[in-house]
Amino acid sequence: MSANFRSDNESPVAQPVWAALERANRGTAHAYAEDEWSRRLDGAFGELFGTEVSVLPVATGTVANAIALAATTPPWGSVYCHDQSHVYRDESGAPEFFGNGLRLVPVGGPDGKIGAAELAEALHDAEGHGVHSYAPAALTVTQSTESGSVYSPGELSELCEMARCRGMATHLDGARFANAVASLGCDPADISWRAGIEMLSFGAAKNGCVAAEALVFFERRELLETAERLRKRSGHLLSKMRYVSAQLLAYLEDGLWLELAAHANRQAARFAAAVENHPEARLEFPVQANEVFVRWSPEGLGLIANRDIEFNHWPGHDDLARFVFAHSTTDAETQALITAMET
Amino acid sequence: MSANFRSDNESPVAQPVWAALERANRGTAHAYAEDEWSRRLDGAFGELFGTEVSVLPVATGTVANAIALAATTPPWGSVYCHDQSHVYRDESGAPEFFGNGLRLVPVGGPDGKIGAAELAEALHDAEGHGVHSYAPAALTVTQSTESGSVYSPGELSELCEMARCRGMATHLDGARFANAVASLGCDPADISWRAGIEMLSFGAAKNGCVAAEALVFFERRELLETAERLRKRSGHLLSKMRYVSAQLLAYLEDGLWLELAAHANRQAARFAAAVENHPEARLEFPVQANEVFVRWSPEGLGLIANRDIEFNHWPGHDDLARFVFAHSTTDAETQALITAMET
Amino acid sequence: MSANFRSDNESPVAQPVWAALERANRGTAHAYAEDEWSRRLDGAFGELFGTEVSVLPVATGTVANAIALAATTPPWGSVYCHDQSHVYRDESGAPEFFGNGLRLVPVGGPDGKIGAAELAEALHDAEGHGVHSYAPAALTVTQSTESGSVYSPGELSELCEMARCRGMATHLDGARFANAVASLGCDPADISWRAGIEMLSFGAAKNGCVAAEALVFFERRELLETAERLRKRSGHLLSKMRYVSAQLLAYLEDGLWLELAAHANRQAARFAAAVENHPEARLEFPVQANEVFVRWSPEGLGLIANRDIEFNHWPGHDDLARFVFAHSTTDAETQALITAMET
Amino acid sequence: MSANFRSDNESPVAQPVWAALERANRGTAHAYAEDEWSRRLDGAFGELFGTEVSVLPVATGTVANAIALAATTPPWGSVYCHDQSHVYRDESGAPEFFGNGLRLVPVGGPDGKIGAAELAEALHDAEGHGVHSYAPAALTVTQSTESGSVYSPGELSELCEMARCRGMATHLDGARFANAVASLGCDPADISWRAGIEMLSFGAAKNGCVAAEALVFFERRELLETAERLRKRSGHLLSKMRYVSAQLLAYLEDGLWLELAAHANRQAARFAAAVENHPEARLEFPVQANEVFVRWSPEGLGLIANRDIEFNHWPGHDDLARFVFAHSTTDAETQALITAMET
Repeated sequence: MSANFRSDNESPVAQPVWAALERANRGTAHAYAEDEWSRRLDGAFGELFGTEVSVLPVATGTVANAIALAATTPPWGSVYCHDQSHVYRDESGAPEFFGNGLRLVPVGGPDGKIGAAELAEALHDAEGHGVHSYAPAALTVTQSTESGSVYSPGELSELCEMARCRGMATHLDGARFANAVASLGCDPADISWRAGIEMLSFGAAKNGCVAAEALVFFERRELLETAERLRKRSGHLLSKMRYVSAQLLAYLEDGLWLELAAHANRQAARFAAAVENHPEARLEFPVQANEVFVRWSPEGLGLIANRDIEFNHWPGHDDLARFVFAHSTTDAETQALITAMET
Repeated sequence: MSANFRSDNESPVAQPVWAALERANRGTAHAYAEDEWSRRLDGAFGELFGTEVSVLPVATGTVANAIALAATTPPWGSVYCHDQSHVYRDESGAPEFFGNGLRLVPVGGPDGKIGAAELAEALHDAEGHGVHSYAPAALTVTQSTESGSVYSPGELSELCEMARCRGMATHLDGARFANAVASLGCDPADISWRAGIEMLSFGAAKNGCVAAEALVFFERRELLETAERLRKRSGHLLSKMRYVSAQLLAYLEDGLWLELAAHANRQAARFAAAVENHPEARLEFPVQANEVFVRWSPEGLGLIANRDIEFNHWPGHDDLARFVFAHSTTDAETQALITAMET
Repeated sequence: MSANFRSDNESPVAQPVWAALERANRGTAHAYAEDEWSRRLDGAFGELFGTEVSVLPVATGTVANAIALAATTPPWGSVYCHDQSHVYRDESGAPEFFGNGLRLVPVGGPDGKIGAAELAEALHDAEGHGVHSYAPAALTVTQSTESGSVYSPGELSELCEMARCRGMATHLDGARFANAVASLGCDPADISWRAGIEMLSFGAAKNGCVAAEALVFFERRELLETAERLRKRSGHLLSKMRYVSAQLLAYLEDGLWLELAAHANRQAARFAAAVENHPEARLEFPVQANEVFVRWSPEGLGLIANRDIEFNHWPGHDDLARFVFAHSTTDAETQALITAMET
Repeated sequence: MSANFRSDNESPVAQPVWAALERANRGTAHAYAEDEWSRRLDGAFGELFGTEVSVLPVATGTVANAIALAATTPPWGSVYCHDQSHVYRDESGAPEFFGNGLRLVPVGGPDGKIGAAELAEALHDAEGHGVHSYAPAALTVTQSTESGSVYSPGELSELCEMARCRGMATHLDGARFANAVASLGCDPADISWRAGIEMLSFGAAKNGCVAAEALVFFERRELLETAERLRKRSGHLLSKMRYVSAQLLAYLEDGLWLELAAHANRQAARFAAAVENHPEARLEFPVQANEVFVRWSPEGLGLIANRDIEFNHWPGHDDLARFVFAHSTTDAETQALITAMET
């Protein structure tokens, strides 16, 4: 059977989200986020996280990230991120664009996670040169990471503390936040505001929605007005925002977001186990969420591709492939992948 | 009965568009506009306009406008627009943001339409100062206008010719392009590329879609790559673009777009006729599309508001109101409005 | 004899300023405005204005203006200026560039001066549209104006009060501030901070210096750090700033700045008197500083040009010419101009 | 005796340059680079380099660099530079500002020189991700480097070839270009256009001028108009440009620029020899121009500082110091430094 493991971005929309959209599509509603769905977001997310929040609904994760970073970083400020992070490698400079030439500083660390020592060194390197150099202004961390790994609450706290004691803002790119929470089995607060995260790009599109993300301010809530300006000015204030907000509300309801993510994680774990048992292929990174990176010979990977199974080679590497599992991945699809690899 | 004439942005989604979205929501599809729906856009729009085009699907009209203007105007270039236009008054500087500080030059003219004499004077005023002043780079026209009027093909041609003979780009903000075509009963080409328009923001969200607009390049198609960069960098390359493109395809199919717009125009015309017969209220602008501006005493307008009918006072004017008719406006709603005004 | 009335920008450097430069050119001095001359600027300007100030030395008036406006105006903020002002017409969008797409709103008024009624109307027009439109953020006024006229202290106060009661910043483009003070015979404070001006671009290059202007903060002094960042980031933090600051100190010393400006004003007045007595030529604007605008037939203006006397036709007007008088204009040169006009 | 080795930026102006400024300060001259001095620049630099060039005079090296990079790199383009380069570490993001959020990619390599292997790897890393990532657009190299080393013509050619075969622009930051030419004893063309450099920031301020640099286009001369726009829009089109251009002409005349640089290099070499013979201090980098980096204990460096000799510790390092020798450094000053180190 054919199957697609290229990206969770390629999955369809989950049924409860679709049903909510249909319910929202009745009669008129005030435009530009003045609708009743949008007005309920602060409450819904506040309840989820157990603290007061201000929420900005948008259609993409890239714009959520860019607004968070631009709202907290002056043009002469720098943002510290992992050198494999989406903001650094996959957003074509959206943070730099929204932030009028702010600079991203790539930091290393194993398994897609910023290392504390690496961050300390990078921050030290920025000191002592006054107006001549960029001033550290924000830290952005991805959870789960682009490598499919997950920070523990303690790891996040340590990084955030390093940033906050310097007055830097802290942001979490949670395009796959649900997968991380499902993986850790923790309270969402444990890997966000309780760990020192001030702003969260809460992803939904990859995990069952059409196009919906929530920029959640735990702290710095006075920046909401700036964030709204940036959203409008960048063309992201949808006139019919109700259709975004209705997705988000449905996504949170009855734990749907966690249920969908847990399903994806389980599929990934099953495949990872098969890789671990494989005589040639091996896992490139620990598999803690819904992404599996496999190091294998080009010929080996070709065997899978020949079975009508889609996946991406990592750019520039013909012996490294990424398999992403989605809320909609079926047992049969995962089994087909495992079978393809084993034969 | 209650009714909402605040904006066509507040209308729900037309049924055929919804049905197409449901059909698109099956299985996986390649992300980032590499899906089969997005690939069909050039062909569908090319057929509609009877010429080869390059199409960029996006979620909002603001971003379509901003990309068109930024792609053709250097930071030290100026864009000529009507002083009541959406790009000048309602986009919070999106063109300036995307265009890194390009300048919009507001031009007057009656009924929301740029006057040829006014444009000539404004262009003359920009001459002869070299590197010290902005260089005229683009003209953007709105059709139908923010005042509810419609340019004739000849009027558009005259303005475009003035721009093109100076090497300026020409853009049409067609947030309500469908209403203009339905009003004129012309071929869509007559008020776009045949009139000298090089780029068109083809609106769909106000007229039956969720969030979908098409930036259509008739000329300057080599700018598509720049436009794609601007879309990505501004966070507007939706991962699940299939859901945008599927809307657009359904919107064009079997003339749905024109049918919906014609319905809205008819409702507006019916109300306009009632205003014309009213002893006190009067039309502020000619009613040629789906918007009706009514000049009436605050007390008179208050009578309507008291009947649970929603509409907007024009900012800064308590005796000027805008009523917008949508594809979803029912005869009963229009009648309720007329009744409210007459009693 | 030949003479040049094209611009005070074309004049040489006054002798006392030159002598000060020579004195500064001895031995080493700390770079990047850490030198002893630069450190004395706050004191020297504070004494001149009779209040505490923070001063940023730069090489051009354009950058002084751009920094002041960008430091006080967010990208979605608007700056109100005269429609003939240098910031609007002659800086190729420097404020928009430094301010990441802020918008200049041109306001009319006679004789190059912003009219209070025109400003009130423009500000009213900006109200009530929230995130969709630019937010008024700053007012910038030119003194003496680009038309050669001068605001009275009362006129300035009225405009500033309109801005400040809305929380807007107030800036004065004083490229020819000296000419205005010399014309009014007032205390410099009377047309700056006492009139409600918070920031002043204090010009010196046109009136005897090489390239030197001082951005003076009377209020909002906490923005100095932002201003320093903008100066550095735009390449305007000269390594050898001592040569700029030494000019400014010499320019202020013993009232040199006023003496030079008074001389230029007197030459202009003398020519203006001759124009008033001329049978055909007439003054376009009141002559209150060092610029004289003459409306005359192209043939008449040609008579002057034929005598080897240089001046500028106003862009787009062959019957309007500007004559600018400088600190270095001699009696003989002014007489030559008068003679050329009269024969 | 006291002496200052903090930076060549802290040196005074060379006498022939000063004399030329005095000669330029006679009578009026057309403003905004329309003067006779500015008009002679293309010819003077063309003769120096033995090829046709277009030259843009400016006041600082930072703006010369920023204009060159912004003129050749779109906002979604990346510029490859050394990780210790001035553009990356000392310009507070001027390239990002002028280039509307372009990205600098730091590349390593020994002794302040970009390594060919490191550059190849960095370029490879940028491939294959289309619109999602920055597109390599320019290479900028510093000569002599910030570490005081000098690229050979062959080393430069190799790097330029790697860039040009990918269509990237090539730029040389020549803040200390004179020191490199003096060091190599080569023709200036050998380390500029003959090595594949398309644009050169030809420095003069550090080596005897007040504030003057020339952006020289060997190739891409059609970008001069863009460069002029960027200069104007950033506030760098000095009204009295004659005073900048006169410096540059004097600097080139009779080989003054090389003579001054050779003097500085000799002083540096003399000190470097002393360091090499020192029992504890050692050279951090090869000394090939006018900068000497000394690794020594904090106590050792303190001995020098105690003798009223100024120099900079490298930011973040208390055991690394930089000593810069200028055209104005005297034998006695160098001897005083050597003596201080040896006792």
